[in-house]
Amino acid sequence: MLVNKTFASDNYAGVHPEIMDALIKANVGHEGSYGNDSHTKTAIANFRKHFGENTEVFFAYNGTGANVLGLSILTQSYNSIICSELAHINVDESTAPEKFLGCKLLTIPTQDGKIYPDAIEDRIIRVGDQHHPQAKVISISQTTEYATVYSVKEVKAIASVAKKHNLYLHMDGSRISNAAVSLNKSFREFTVDAGVDVLSFGGTKNGLMFGEAVLVFNPALATAFPYIRKQAMQLHSKMRFISAQFNALLTHDLWSKNAHHANQLASRLANGLRQFPAIKITRPVDANGVFATIPPSVIPKLQDHSFFYVWNDKTHEVRLMCSWDTSEKDVDFFISKLDDILY
Amino acid sequence: MLVNKTFASDNYAGVHPEIMDALIKANVGHEGSYGNDSHTKTAIANFRKHFGENTEVFFAYNGTGANVLGLSILTQSYNSIICSELAHINVDESTAPEKFLGCKLLTIPTQDGKIYPDAIEDRIIRVGDQHHPQAKVISISQTTEYATVYSVKEVKAIASVAKKHNLYLHMDGSRISNAAVSLNKSFREFTVDAGVDVLSFGGTKNGLMFGEAVLVFNPALATAFPYIRKQAMQLHSKMRFISAQFNALLTHDLWSKNAHHANQLASRLANGLRQFPAIKITRPVDANGVFATIPPSVIPKLQDHSFFYVWNDKTHEVRLMCSWDTSEKDVDFFISKLDDILY
Amino acid sequence: MLVNKTFASDNYAGVHPEIMDALIKANVGHEGSYGNDSHTKTAIANFRKHFGENTEVFFAYNGTGANVLGLSILTQSYNSIICSELAHINVDESTAPEKFLGCKLLTIPTQDGKIYPDAIEDRIIRVGDQHHPQAKVISISQTTEYATVYSVKEVKAIASVAKKHNLYLHMDGSRISNAAVSLNKSFREFTVDAGVDVLSFGGTKNGLMFGEAVLVFNPALATAFPYIRKQAMQLHSKMRFISAQFNALLTHDLWSKNAHHANQLASRLANGLRQFPAIKITRPVDANGVFATIPPSVIPKLQDHSFFYVWNDKTHEVRLMCSWDTSEKDVDFFISKLDDILY
Amino acid sequence: MLVNKTFASDNYAGVHPEIMDALIKANVGHEGSYGNDSHTKTAIANFRKHFGENTEVFFAYNGTGANVLGLSILTQSYNSIICSELAHINVDESTAPEKFLGCKLLTIPTQDGKIYPDAIEDRIIRVGDQHHPQAKVISISQTTEYATVYSVKEVKAIASVAKKHNLYLHMDGSRISNAAVSLNKSFREFTVDAGVDVLSFGGTKNGLMFGEAVLVFNPALATAFPYIRKQAMQLHSKMRFISAQFNALLTHDLWSKNAHHANQLASRLANGLRQFPAIKITRPVDANGVFATIPPSVIPKLQDHSFFYVWNDKTHEVRLMCSWDTSEKDVDFFISKLDDILY
Repeated sequence: MLVNKTFASDNYAGVHPEIMDALIKANVGHEGSYGNDSHTKTAIANFRKHFGENTEVFFAYNGTGANVLGLSILTQSYNSIICSELAHINVDESTAPEKFLGCKLLTIPTQDGKIYPDAIEDRIIRVGDQHHPQAKVISISQTTEYATVYSVKEVKAIASVAKKHNLYLHMDGSRISNAAVSLNKSFREFTVDAGVDVLSFGGTKNGLMFGEAVLVFNPALATAFPYIRKQAMQLHSKMRFISAQFNALLTHDLWSKNAHHANQLASRLANGLRQFPAIKITRPVDANGVFATIPPSVIPKLQDHSFFYVWNDKTHEVRLMCSWDTSEKDVDFFISKLDDILY
Repeated sequence: MLVNKTFASDNYAGVHPEIMDALIKANVGHEGSYGNDSHTKTAIANFRKHFGENTEVFFAYNGTGANVLGLSILTQSYNSIICSELAHINVDESTAPEKFLGCKLLTIPTQDGKIYPDAIEDRIIRVGDQHHPQAKVISISQTTEYATVYSVKEVKAIASVAKKHNLYLHMDGSRISNAAVSLNKSFREFTVDAGVDVLSFGGTKNGLMFGEAVLVFNPALATAFPYIRKQAMQLHSKMRFISAQFNALLTHDLWSKNAHHANQLASRLANGLRQFPAIKITRPVDANGVFATIPPSVIPKLQDHSFFYVWNDKTHEVRLMCSWDTSEKDVDFFISKLDDILY
Repeated sequence: MLVNKTFASDNYAGVHPEIMDALIKANVGHEGSYGNDSHTKTAIANFRKHFGENTEVFFAYNGTGANVLGLSILTQSYNSIICSELAHINVDESTAPEKFLGCKLLTIPTQDGKIYPDAIEDRIIRVGDQHHPQAKVISISQTTEYATVYSVKEVKAIASVAKKHNLYLHMDGSRISNAAVSLNKSFREFTVDAGVDVLSFGGTKNGLMFGEAVLVFNPALATAFPYIRKQAMQLHSKMRFISAQFNALLTHDLWSKNAHHANQLASRLANGLRQFPAIKITRPVDANGVFATIPPSVIPKLQDHSFFYVWNDKTHEVRLMCSWDTSEKDVDFFISKLDDILY
Repeated sequence: MLVNKTFASDNYAGVHPEIMDALIKANVGHEGSYGNDSHTKTAIANFRKHFGENTEVFFAYNGTGANVLGLSILTQSYNSIICSELAHINVDESTAPEKFLGCKLLTIPTQDGKIYPDAIEDRIIRVGDQHHPQAKVISISQTTEYATVYSVKEVKAIASVAKKHNLYLHMDGSRISNAAVSLNKSFREFTVDAGVDVLSFGGTKNGLMFGEAVLVFNPALATAFPYIRKQAMQLHSKMRFISAQFNALLTHDLWSKNAHHANQLASRLANGLRQFPAIKITRPVDANGVFATIPPSVIPKLQDHSFFYVWNDKTHEVRLMCSWDTSEKDVDFFISKLDDILY
């Protein structure tokens, strides 16, 4: 009954065949370890094609590692980091940021997963006061944890706040490909060109086996990165097997195809759900996730056919994620089962 | 010229074909993430066959992660950890142990990579003195960083010291398969049965793409492990791809075949080197590494043919590592080139 | 013009003469260091008279140190601590809690400085979920940062929540004497007997030169305290000079006299302010602080006569603190100057 | 029997009368907290008279705090700190340096308490290697833990090593006044002018009640110090009471008188001991401490009269510390009792 976890998480999906193929092809002979290999050189060049020649590229194991490492080069331990109260760094990474960085996370309530300039500025207080954590970074998720997407203009507005107050802008892009497809923009238009300083570029949720990238757009910020990555236990020995996956992802627009597919299926799913008056779509469907309230009696019955997670026990809001391997059949099966249960 | 890095590091080797095959086979449909999958269940069962039913099994990304996590459940931040001055945790993991644990590493000089009871006891001082770091763990590497192997008796003697002083015994087993083959013992005879409390079980250096395991032999010590692993950024989402590799390694004794091969090639290499009076084998050749002094003028010429690392610039001692994919041809090529240069 | 800082902070006050006298008397000959002295023995006994024989007593340098140490024995680094968004640990101790503990602070908005059971329970989520910080401590300030005071019943209600969810209850009592006087209760009635596990007992703000105490009501929690205190750089060598101050404070009810005086002056000040329609008292005046909104044009003129801090720039709410040495003359001077400015 | 702890520790001594007097005089009215007071302004000026106008001055509570704070502005968490194996930061500050800094301490064996250029250079290895802690600071104690004193030339030679390798030089001067007197040099000759970057200037062991100072000789290094000090729980609210003590110490050369007295008494004690063939002075007597081997049967008998600490249980080496309040009578009593016991 493998189909029945389709909408649970994009981490439940496997590895895209082209990625797996790249792993097999990279498995030839001896190669230098820790990044001294030909695949890593190519991967760095591939990222620079998308983000510009000044981009420093570092690979990490997972999203938490990428986020914490990216934040580590932007902060001192007496700093605070402004983010949404739903930010992955705030609610889904244990206390990794606090433990490794020493920093406080200053959170902002959100309805659509985004944070906005006014609320951000309200959080920048007591500047220069030794008793108070000093705000230094704004961290936004693109796509957000509600699968919504910041427009280029929205990112630029936040970057303006950051520059005005001498803060950095960090982007958690664990699903950045879905955002790019949703925006129909190049990566750089809504990252480096919009004022982002450091980006976590997600791989695992878009078809990789393991591996994320941290992109630093100001090389001066990156000088200590290798030491910190090693210390943070995020340096892989057989690095070629991360790099080769990213090379497959970035070549022939596999990143785009996968993300486009997932986004489109989420759209199809949302459309299917909209026909039921008992179901309410609760957040804008910008990318590969659908949030909706479902009558509580319906939820467990539906989960028996196709498992998904309840996001909010009190409001009966559920989260339905689509991934590179979700099929139209999966969506239609889900809608038809829902129809069976409801009527 | 891929052959020319053969003896540089067992991290330069690729992935064993049976491991790669397991990865491909695991890549079917959706599976629960973070360890809620069938491969992980099997992997835990496989480890318990080797180490006993009370063994708690946790996967991590790399050796540093496995070591630091293992030590984290044995220490408080005011503790010290006794180890060899050459221990990987002391010289090759940046300051990951100090940063994550807060602990001090108390080091013991070593000629053969091992530490011995008397020297360990000398390090356990000022017990109960609040001003002084309180020794709590003895950490040994099996095989050691000099590719030597502790006998069962030696491990037991260290475990006795640990028990006597209310310390724990941690084993860094990044090359534990090579040790088991060298000792011709089951894993448990020189680990859990010899008094080891927590073990890092290495995968990457024995043919895996990525992934290490932490084995905890007293379940009461393991209750907080999942939280700490997440916080330490060592929890993989698509866990099945670590577990499946270990299943391949532990089934049909692949671990043993790979390690046996590497050890044997090291032995062949050592024998080849012994015929040259100018070359001196400097450490016992117990497992898959050979340490030897080579005349300084010879080193760069030989490296041009087959790259390896100089371990000690002053003494011209070099390290030659064999891995699961080193071939007799590689060894014979090395020896013949050495012969060419020397004569 | 020393009078003009009277209401700025109870940290601006000096040392009470009886405390200074105790310091002079303790300065005789050699005494054991780090707490091995007669004054410390007496101080521990004095605290036990107030809090019970099972109380473990540890001295620290300052309030931040006392709070962080107290929390350190109640938490693991993957835990979260629930507190008011105004809690001193959240806004006035830099990121000391995050850096030293690794924990996240989960904050609750507040109007009166207090937090209440319902809001606390809403913060205890995702129990047992390795991805999410695990709530382990509720920390309340008594008096609160708004100089309000939890009733015994309120403390007990929070303690019930703590017990129900297997959390600890920590009390930041930097102004605990003012709370005791306000409640007209013994210390133990609203601390250990009400379910508090660990208490920071404030000294500096009630007439000491330096020094706070951490009281641990369950000795089993305190075994590692000495090591952690040393590591946290909070262990004083010439400890007798902290202990002797506390002995003076706890003997002949000096703690009570000082706190009573400060509370009474705050009451007099509040009464004085209430006669001006333009001034609004914004928080209950339970102890030694008065919060009030003052017309923005009045504030700087008044500060020229008697300096105080603006608590909220936007609402023109100010904080006026009374201390053991505030005089009726100070209060009357302040009110008369305000009268001059307003009319 | 207060006399009987005279030689145990200079922390057993009380507060010098002139220091106590300064505390009493500073206790007038309200003063700004956290260093915004007149005494602190004066204290900073006083330190600058001794160390130069570019000196940044920060007060801390104790020696561990001063050392860790001083090191915190010189290091990143992936750095190592080179020091003597006997360094106070290595053996007497729990794991405060590791916990707060994340750094590793690289220790050098010592006979006289000092470390020397050749041994230091041997510790600076694998520069630029991300796997290995990167040496960044040399920390020396002046006087050393054996109460010996580095000459100006010796400090300069170490500073040369530091500069050559782009490291900083930190000095733990918890007994710096004793060193200055011993060398008969101004403070700056063997600190800032000799190449020291950051100095812990000790107060408590030379007659203060509490308080140490951190002096930073390059203001650019000090910009983050206030935030880090607060985070490290080392910021005192009623700062005037630390500053006033240092003002007393630095005015009319009280620092020198106290240190001169203690050094002279140590010299008298050493001379007294030298007359007994059974006693062997084991370290140069440069300052206020005497190390000597005493027959094991004699030690407890002598301790009954005048308590002191055994430094090394195996060699029966004891440590005898003199302080500002040790008297000639104390010394003569000790020698006469020793004479009684020996003969």
